[in-house]
Amino acid sequence: MNKGLLLVLSGPSGSGKGTINQVIAEDPNVFISVSATTRQPREGEQDGKHYYFLSKEEFESRLSTGMILEHNVYCGNYYGTPKKEVYEHLEQGHDVILEIDVNGALKVMKENDVVSIFIMPPSLEVLEQRLRGRGTETEEVVQQRLNEALTEISKAYEYDYIVVNDNLEDAIAQVKAIIVAEKCKTEQNVELIKGVLS
Amino acid sequence: MNKGLLLVLSGPSGSGKGTINQVIAEDPNVFISVSATTRQPREGEQDGKHYYFLSKEEFESRLSTGMILEHNVYCGNYYGTPKKEVYEHLEQGHDVILEIDVNGALKVMKENDVVSIFIMPPSLEVLEQRLRGRGTETEEVVQQRLNEALTEISKAYEYDYIVVNDNLEDAIAQVKAIIVAEKCKTEQNVELIKGVLS
Repeated sequence: MNKGLLLVLSGPSGSGKGTINQVIAEDPNVFISVSATTRQPREGEQDGKHYYFLSKEEFESRLSTGMILEHNVYCGNYYGTPKKEVYEHLEQGHDVILEIDVNGALKVMKENDVVSIFIMPPSLEVLEQRLRGRGTETEEVVQQRLNEALTEISKAYEYDYIVVNDNLEDAIAQVKAIIVAEKCKTEQNVELIKGVLS
Repeated sequence: MNKGLLLVLSGPSGSGKGTINQVIAEDPNVFISVSATTRQPREGEQDGKHYYFLSKEEFESRLSTGMILEHNVYCGNYYGTPKKEVYEHLEQGHDVILEIDVNGALKVMKENDVVSIFIMPPSLEVLEQRLRGRGTETEEVVQQRLNEALTEISKAYEYDYIVVNDNLEDAIAQVKAIIVAEKCKTEQNVELIKGVLS
């Protein structure tokens, strides 16, 4: 059996990456990685579902033993991707999606065999409309998100694939096609060729 | 507008590559390249449809001016892929499929930006059944085709993608997914990223 694919899907807030990830993960062979954090659980959040809630000592111990794939610090708390669960799923032939920001993605891409996809808004104008359309963001937050989006999009060149989310169905079909195509890559099928030849 | 993809689909006789190519080429944006040859047209064969029928002098003149993408000699006649038509279609944004053998494919892959797909039978036993199932081949021809298949499959490692044709519909879906994914590759979308950023 082939190992699964390690997928990184990034994109600015409003790009629709969350929705796309959810639809892709409806496939029982696809798992979205659960992050670990040292922040306190909020009401309704379940350990192992929304996050793995770890003490600072436990997180730092895992960091020092290389058991965290990538991490960052936000408002004084650690956030990171536990390595063990990801690797176990991959070994079982499951594809694993990492929902991480661009900086985390670039780190993971450097050190792992990753298929990286950047979800791109069709234009900044459309992104702005989507962010305003939520009706929950203040003008200041909208401007901040747009600035962050510019920084993130300028790093899109580092990704393997660009999927423009103009139409959600098309974008989902493209991500699915990328997964199918990646499994057809010759380096994934060396044993198969040997098998036919033997 | 993006340039089209130059696709090479190879595979042994009985792999089903001809059927797959025909289905893929039902898309009006996909063209199967028409080969040029110096052999005489057979009854019913149309110039520009089945082949471009050229004189030996004309073919050699095109060869010497670099207007043939790849060629070989079979039974004293030249067979080759005219460059001009292929490039014109690519410039118009059409994808072009080259139906060429493994040796021709390896030559084209060396000198061009090509997406190469090897259509693989699930096993040699299945390939043998398919070749016998045609009922038109003598035992000698079946054995010869199997030997050729072994030589061709041993070169499958040189291709970008392996598509196993166990089930025709799945194989077609995989080739279509590869085409979609290749168009999402970041190097195909550099102008798009620049456009969003500007």
